[in-house]
Amino acid sequence: MTKSEYIPGLEGVVAAQTNKSMVDGLAGKLVIGGFPLERIALNASFEEMVFLLWNDHLPTQKELSTFQQSLVELRELPEATMSLLEEISNSDLDMMDALRIGAGTLGTESPENDPDSWNARRLVAAFPTLVSAAWRFSQGEKPIAPNPKLGHAANYLYMIEGKIPSESRSRGLETYLNTVIDHGLNASTFTARVIVSTESDFISAIVGAVGALKGPLHGGAPGPALDMVFDIGSADKAEAYLRKKIEAGERLMGFGHRVYKVRDPRAEVLSEAARMLFENDGDTQLYDLVKSVEKQAVALLEEYKPGRNLYTNVEFYTALLLHGLDLSIPMFSPTFAVGRVAGWLAHCFEQRERGRLIRPKAEYDGEMDRQYIEIAKR
Amino acid sequence: MTKSEYIPGLEGVVAAQTNKSMVDGLAGKLVIGGFPLERIALNASFEEMVFLLWNDHLPTQKELSTFQQSLVELRELPEATMSLLEEISNSDLDMMDALRIGAGTLGTESPENDPDSWNARRLVAAFPTLVSAAWRFSQGEKPIAPNPKLGHAANYLYMIEGKIPSESRSRGLETYLNTVIDHGLNASTFTARVIVSTESDFISAIVGAVGALKGPLHGGAPGPALDMVFDIGSADKAEAYLRKKIEAGERLMGFGHRVYKVRDPRAEVLSEAARMLFENDGDTQLYDLVKSVEKQAVALLEEYKPGRNLYTNVEFYTALLLHGLDLSIPMFSPTFAVGRVAGWLAHCFEQRERGRLIRPKAEYDGEMDRQYIEIAKR
Repeated sequence: MTKSEYIPGLEGVVAAQTNKSMVDGLAGKLVIGGFPLERIALNASFEEMVFLLWNDHLPTQKELSTFQQSLVELRELPEATMSLLEEISNSDLDMMDALRIGAGTLGTESPENDPDSWNARRLVAAFPTLVSAAWRFSQGEKPIAPNPKLGHAANYLYMIEGKIPSESRSRGLETYLNTVIDHGLNASTFTARVIVSTESDFISAIVGAVGALKGPLHGGAPGPALDMVFDIGSADKAEAYLRKKIEAGERLMGFGHRVYKVRDPRAEVLSEAARMLFENDGDTQLYDLVKSVEKQAVALLEEYKPGRNLYTNVEFYTALLLHGLDLSIPMFSPTFAVGRVAGWLAHCFEQRERGRLIRPKAEYDGEMDRQYIEIAKR
Repeated sequence: MTKSEYIPGLEGVVAAQTNKSMVDGLAGKLVIGGFPLERIALNASFEEMVFLLWNDHLPTQKELSTFQQSLVELRELPEATMSLLEEISNSDLDMMDALRIGAGTLGTESPENDPDSWNARRLVAAFPTLVSAAWRFSQGEKPIAPNPKLGHAANYLYMIEGKIPSESRSRGLETYLNTVIDHGLNASTFTARVIVSTESDFISAIVGAVGALKGPLHGGAPGPALDMVFDIGSADKAEAYLRKKIEAGERLMGFGHRVYKVRDPRAEVLSEAARMLFENDGDTQLYDLVKSVEKQAVALLEEYKPGRNLYTNVEFYTALLLHGLDLSIPMFSPTFAVGRVAGWLAHCFEQRERGRLIRPKAEYDGEMDRQYIEIAKR
């Protein structure tokens, strides 16, 4: 073993090879399953995207029907899970904890034969049921059973609201889920891969990933971006509001990204999805306000912080789109997980096939030779 | 960003700085909290070891009393957790799944103020209760409530068996828990650190770590080593049995370690703990057999595989010691977790204080520019 140096955060270290997604921050490019994001996210169904990431090709109609049916069959939760979700809804847990706890119980029916494939479908199929049930319990309402006639995205909205969503609302959510389905080796995806690397099961891996996603540093806190837009209220007040905020040294939520130094390609797709949704609803007032806040903010950030390349990130339009779908802010992260779980699982399959035990080293900087002194003499 | 190369398994990469433990595989040395293992494991109580790892010094009598009491108060499980454990005991889950699922629910009562410290004590205090309850449910028996008069190790045995254990049995388990409490940056500890690095909570981190520990590649499967000893049956049959096994190209379970190229220092301590336990029980037959199998095996491994340095690892004497404590094989890994959870949490505290977001990169090797074809035309 050679002596090596501590690499804080493993920054720049290549820990996996993948064909799931590629993030090119400088070019503002995101490739998912071989497709530039904007070429596929607005077109494919979520089930097609999941199939693509797990099989490295888009399904034929026959493959898709079989796959869809296998997901529909795994949507319902075990009774023990349902009563657990109801019981914990009395405590002050946030929705991500409820999702983590519920997801942890999903392996109780895994078959011994090929558990990976079953667990993967089980998790993707049941995530919307878990989130919607936890949400309704938290609102003092009864969960709504999945509707086998609806697609994945439409059924999620149905289980939240209790009514069959319009085509444009389903499409809006579907585009969102497609857009966030995978994004390189973020901390939650990496967590899932480390867990699978010990040859543990996919339920354990996904439960770990949900725990990592919950952390504020993970990214995916779209609430504050929208709060700012509501605070501004109308386009003519944007410039003064934003100048004041920037001059006070405050961060503009929804702008800037660790990796992307141009406009986040996901913002592009989500902005388009939001436009279609709001136009269809016949009220583009909020959409128009958001567009003009974005324009002002980008210009002012360039004026105050030239060369910093602070552009709209995924959270800005996520907030708009999910708000347009009537989802409350506590539902934003769990809804992100409903999409991302499929990407996590794609990485689990890949880790199983191509990976090996992930076990870096630590550098010890503590004492070496302490003497044990009996407690009475300390 | 500079272009870097894929490092399979992150082998040799230093991903953290720590003062929790140091593993020197060439010298056969393990330092825990500044103490060479053999200097502390047989002397300290488990509570002292936990305090040491979390505070970087051994407690005074007063500190220890306060700490012990704070653990005693957190031993009982929430009702929802208990009924969940009972319900899932009907399915075919293994004990590690039950522990993971149960541990996931422990945050329901976390205070908003300083949740880390509370969660950490909660997890350490409740792990024995979770494991013993899950075990008794799986045996069709009712769980036994914790006994506040007993120390951590003694109480664990008490909750499994329903009777107050002898001094030597408590000490045997205590030495085991102390010995496995921490061991550098293994995959489960690393998982916990990655999850905490997103600023997520300690419950999420530990649930992820339990999931990683479950994997067969993690290490910690002491069952097969003992099976071999039972197979051999008596010392005079050891040589022939072992020669046959080695010549058939089979691996001798309990020998060889990825890191240690001399005798695992933990084997030393656990062998001593086992000797004291079996001598106190007045029956050293199995202990003597194990010693002579070890001697034969090490000699034969050197004869057949010279220079490979295959020595007794931690699993060999873990199996003997836990068997001497009447624990069944499915309880071996969960009992390991009862000790290791304190080390995981020490790393969680350290990650919180000294770490930053752990987020390595992936190297994309998939397609780049696929064309979207409508499903009817695929």
